[in-house]
Formats: sequence, structure tokens, C-alpha cells
Amino acid sequence: MGAEGFRFDLIKGRARGPRLGVLHTAHGDVETPVFMPVGTQATIKATSPEQAWHAGARLILANTYHLYLKPGHEVVSSLGGLHEFMGWSGPILTDSGGFQVFSLSSLRKIEEQGVTFRSHIDGSTHFISPEKSIEIQHSLGADIIMCFDECPPYPVTLEQARSSRARSARWAERCLAYHAGRVACRSGFNGEPSGTGEAGSGKRQALFGIVQGSVYEAERTASAREIAALDFDGCAIGGLSVGEPKEMMLSALEWSIDPLPERKPRYLMGVGTPEDIIQAVARGTDMFDSVLPTRIARHGAALTNRGRLLLKNAEFGDDGSPIEEGCDCYACREFSRGYIRHLFKAKEPLALTLATIHNLRFMANFMARLRDAIAADEFSGFAENFRGTYARRTGRKE
Amino acid sequence: MGAEGFRFDLIKGRARGPRLGVLHTAHGDVETPVFMPVGTQATIKATSPEQAWHAGARLILANTYHLYLKPGHEVVSSLGGLHEFMGWSGPILTDSGGFQVFSLSSLRKIEEQGVTFRSHIDGSTHFISPEKSIEIQHSLGADIIMCFDECPPYPVTLEQARSSRARSARWAERCLAYHAGRVACRSGFNGEPSGTGEAGSGKRQALFGIVQGSVYEAERTASAREIAALDFDGCAIGGLSVGEPKEMMLSALEWSIDPLPERKPRYLMGVGTPEDIIQAVARGTDMFDSVLPTRIARHGAALTNRGRLLLKNAEFGDDGSPIEEGCDCYACREFSRGYIRHLFKAKEPLALTLATIHNLRFMANFMARLRDAIAADEFSGFAENFRGTYARRTGRKE
Repeated sequence: MGAEGFRFDLIKGRARGPRLGVLHTAHGDVETPVFMPVGTQATIKATSPEQAWHAGARLILANTYHLYLKPGHEVVSSLGGLHEFMGWSGPILTDSGGFQVFSLSSLRKIEEQGVTFRSHIDGSTHFISPEKSIEIQHSLGADIIMCFDECPPYPVTLEQARSSRARSARWAERCLAYHAGRVACRSGFNGEPSGTGEAGSGKRQALFGIVQGSVYEAERTASAREIAALDFDGCAIGGLSVGEPKEMMLSALEWSIDPLPERKPRYLMGVGTPEDIIQAVARGTDMFDSVLPTRIARHGAALTNRGRLLLKNAEFGDDGSPIEEGCDCYACREFSRGYIRHLFKAKEPLALTLATIHNLRFMANFMARLRDAIAADEFSGFAENFRGTYARRTGRKE
Repeated sequence: MGAEGFRFDLIKGRARGPRLGVLHTAHGDVETPVFMPVGTQATIKATSPEQAWHAGARLILANTYHLYLKPGHEVVSSLGGLHEFMGWSGPILTDSGGFQVFSLSSLRKIEEQGVTFRSHIDGSTHFISPEKSIEIQHSLGADIIMCFDECPPYPVTLEQARSSRARSARWAERCLAYHAGRVACRSGFNGEPSGTGEAGSGKRQALFGIVQGSVYEAERTASAREIAALDFDGCAIGGLSVGEPKEMMLSALEWSIDPLPERKPRYLMGVGTPEDIIQAVARGTDMFDSVLPTRIARHGAALTNRGRLLLKNAEFGDDGSPIEEGCDCYACREFSRGYIRHLFKAKEPLALTLATIHNLRFMANFMARLRDAIAADEFSGFAENFRGTYARRTGRKE
């Protein structure tokens, strides 16, 4: 099928190992490997779109589950779709809501048709099916949307992993069929999308399938083959970084990536830390998302090349140096550790903003250097250097 | 005496009635009448200096009491003084700490020498005298600093008002003597300020006296004469907007301004609303400060020319229009009422930031239009029009 306006070009690398690529979207191009900051409720917490953009955020993620519940996807749609709503003119990816339905809501009833659950906000009852998730994501109008899948926790039995993987495969086909049908239907309507303008048009939205299978090789392989066989615009690896040991995650990632087509983007959902990203890039992953950099910022932890810096520490009280010497972010250009510590201790909102800006910038710069290293055939050296320096401070300070 | 680098030019108007002027400071010129946003803890809550500047803030106020307690004026001084510390390159005014000592702290003991009080943060005991207040303000290094005065609440008896006014007068002389002494001493030191660089130099700091006297005409007049007789760089009117009826405030303001020198700036402390500013400008006031625009923003109230708009109201849920049509602030240029309502309902920090930016911009634009009206000899027409339009919505929505 293929979404209009969406294309992935693999610039360097093959099916495995570090790769360079470009995601072309209707809202601009994005170089991969890319890290996506998370704007759960249609805002990257504690920053304006302007600040996040200047900090280097390009492709960002918003959560379908949260926006469906509040303010409601119809409201977002009536206000022009997600880009217009949140004032973000760059590309956006929405998840399917599946992960949150399985992790945040209560009283879930999972059936073949879909999932009935209670809102974590007000306890109201809702039903989301694969079709409904795609419909909501059409309303939101992100550039990249995701299949609705069943996300098993860790650990599950092989039996559970298999049954869940099989259901996710059936749901993936239903998502694709619904997406294709709606797109065809929309295209047929005077050639104009019937949605709420460009942002809401399924025509321009890329749909990614999701590999599941918990930590079992046979299930991961089977799932990846199922997803690879379908006409998705990209392939995500889901169900990882949910508590399993790091080694297991990396093995499951390898099993998941192995059967995937070389020329489609691979997206490892919910990862993560710079260390994990290096490991996953080494195994052929192109896209990442995590709340980590923005969440730890709000708790006063800054990412630096020497590890995490705990900004509330008393030692920084009269420290006139920036969070990280040489960093070009607004926080480091304009403010001292002493001032930022004061803001945290005084519970000033600007504390969260400055730490978030710094961590966004750190991730953007980190990914840019990582891409440069791949381009220069120096990825392993970069990875080794980074890990050596990064681990030292993290070890000392935490 | 006169502070180097500080000068007030009266451009239009006389001792009474609306006036236009320019405050020249080492950190830039400011047109008067001016409204000063408040950055209590060395930050205008929920905004970056960049955002506040773009929203039109120029001369801002920081609170000596709060900064003395946290992070401590020595820390601010060691980090380069207030401008450097908070990343604000425009002019800054600090209050004396008196108002907060009298309103926030507990277990006050007021003696002729100074005030002993307990911190509202941790209960620790502190002593601030007129000299100590000036010393702290020298450390902080604002462009304009204030006398330490006794701020009686409302109501007090005539007897209390008189005794308090007399003490404030004695304290004013001590502040001036200490400031002059330190300035002379600093000037004598190789011609270089002995403080922590330019920002911390008493030489360049203007000192304002403060008129007190509660709501009693004789006391206000006596206090204003006492302040007028001393060599201050400007004259503030304190002790108002503390709960007294509006009519009383305006009378007390008139009694306070009447004896003041024509060519020094007059600053009405803690005021306030656009309506009050219009009344005070009509009576010859040049400077204002209030937490109101930024505080109500954080509670979801936006200032508009048609009164306050309560952004959390359900009616704005799918409203695609900006907070105020025609407003040139970042919030109004980029976002809808519907989105900002969503941010408030979702408790996102960006809600506070956008509402604060809008209210800062509203106040800056309001003061600019007010100055234009004075320049065009149309102040009464402007005041009448504004009040007519503003009152309608405020009446309807609250």
C-alpha cells in the first residue's frame, strides 16, 4: 500500500548492524537512527514546542490512550488534528494505546474483538479494538501510526506468549485492512481526504506493525515473519524494556529484527537510555522512544557525557559552571548549576523546563554523534568511548 | 548623591496627573509608566527569561526576603549577582524584604534596631535591620533597591500609624546613610567597586525611599515630606493595596504623591490590576508591580481587553480561537483556547507557561497603549474606553 508522503530511505548499512536512513514525512525529513521524545498529552512536559524544537526534538511521540480519554480524539480532530492542536509542525508518531490499556487501566477484559477497560482517570468504561485504535489515530492525524497489539507483561509462559503473539498477528491484519479500507475510501471521495484536513488524512499516515513474542525465540521469529509478510510502512519491536534482564532484551531484539525486511524502518518501542540505544543501533534499529530523558529531568537528573548529574545535590549550590561544559542548549548557554539547583530547591517550574531542555538536547546531540560515527565507519569506537566515559560518572553519582 | 548610571527623565507631565518618563539604568532604559512583573525567587514563575523578555517584560522585581533565605544573598553574589544568576540582562528592582518580614514570617520582634523573625520556610531565626537590608541588596546587585521600612497592616490606629511612620522615617535615613557610606567607601577603593563585579556595586544602584502612614492624611503627608527631603533616587508609596477600600487607597495615594518632587520617579508598590493602574497613573504614578498577572495566569485566568477569561471553562473545550484575537504573544500566535484548556485540565506545566506569557504580554501592551494615550493627550478617553470594555467581561465571567 504505502502512505503518500511517507518514505524510508536506507542510506547506509544493511539488514543487520548499524544503519543510516532518512524518514520522509509530510511534516519534514528525519535522519535515523532517531530518538523520539514523548509528548504523552500532546505536549513534551515542561517545554513549549519552540523550546523542544530548539533543543533538537524533531519526530515526537504522542499517546493515543491519553488523548482518547482527554481531551478526546474528536476534540483534537475538530481543532485541526494533533499538529495544529499542539503547535508542532514537525513529524509526529502516535502509539496505538495498547500499551497503556494493558499497563494503566483497570478491569481489562481482553477478547478477540478488542479490549474493554476502565479509564485510569475517572473509572469510565471504554472499548478499543484494532479498528477503533486506527480510527482514533486517523482522527489524531500523526504522520506515523501504530498497530493495536496485545502487550504481555514480563514474565509470561511460552503458552501465553504464543497465544498473545497469535492474537497480535490477527489484530495486525485487521489494523492494516481497516487502515487500507479507510484510505481507499477517503481517496475515492472526490480525491480529497474526508478527515479534518491534511493532518487527519489516513492517506498520508504511515502504519507500522509490531513484533511481539515476549522473550521466546520461536515466538519472536514467528511474529517478525508475520509482520514482515504484511504491507506495513515500518516494523516496530514491542514488548521489550518491560522488566526483563538486559541480555534477554538484546536477544529478543536480535530474533525480532532478523526476519524483518532490510528496507523498512525498525522501531524499538520504549527504549531508552543512551547505553541501550547504542546496543540496539548495533543490532540494526532505526527508531527509539522513551520518557526517560524528560522524566528524569523533572526529578532533577541531567544527562551528560559523564553520566547523570543530580542537580539538587548540595555540591552544586554555588557552582557557576553549566550543567555540561560545551553543551549548546539554552540551559547550558544561559544558566549555572547553582541557579538550576536553586530553582529545583525553590520548586520553580523553570527548573523542570531547563533540565528537560538540556536532556532533550543531550539526546539529540548524542544521536547526531552516533550517526556521524556510523557515517565515518567508527561506530564501535564511538560506542566504546561513550560507554567508558558515561559509566564512570553514573557509577560515582548514583 | 545619585547613583551612577541611573537617571529619571520626566518627558511629559508635571507633579500631578499622567506623566511620561524614562528610567535610565546600567541595564537599559525603561519607559514609564511601567508595570514590573514579579520574579520572587529570581525567576518569573513558569517562564524562562527569554519568554518573559519576548512577552514584553523589561524592568522586573525580585524579592530580597526570599533570596536572602534561599539560596542566600552570598550565593547569588558569588554566582555573579542577580542579573547573571537568573540570566536577566534587563534592569531589576529588589524590594527591601520588609513587606515579607511583616506578612510571611512568624514571631516578629520589632525594635528600633531592626526586626527579629522566624523564616516561613524552616523556622530559623533571623535579624534584619535597615543596614542589613541594604547590605543584602548590595550583594544581590539590582539596579534599583528599596529602603527597609515598617509596613503596618490595615487597619491600624492613628497612633500606630504615626509611630510606624516615624520609625520608617528614621530607618529611611539609616538606609540612605549606609548606602551612601558603602558607596563612598567602594568608590574610594581604587575607583573600583569592591562588590562582586558590576552587578553587585552599590555605586550603580539607585535607592528609593518609601512613603508610609496608613490611610491617615496627616501621616501620609508627613511621611511624603520626610522622604521628599532626603536624597533618594526615587520615591515609593508603600502600605497600600493591603486590604483597605479602593477609595481610601486612592486618597492615600494622592496625599502621598502631593509633597513628592516632580522630577523623581514615583512607584506604587504592590499595585496591581489594570483598573488600579489607570487610577494611579491619573494621579501621577510612574511605576507598578504586582504578582497578580502571573499568579492568576497559573490559576487559569487570562487578562484580555474584555476582562478576565477563565481558561478552564468547559465552553473553551473545542474553541479554536486564541486567548485574545489580535494579541501578538506566543500563546495567542500558536495555540487555541481549546488546547490551553486541555493543558490546564491535564495539569501540564505548559499551561502555566502559556497563560503567564499571555498575561505578561497583556500588561506590556496595556502599558504601551496607556503611554501612547498620554503622549497623544488622550489619557482620559483611553481610561474610559478601557474600563467600559474591560468591566463587561469581568462582570459576566466571574
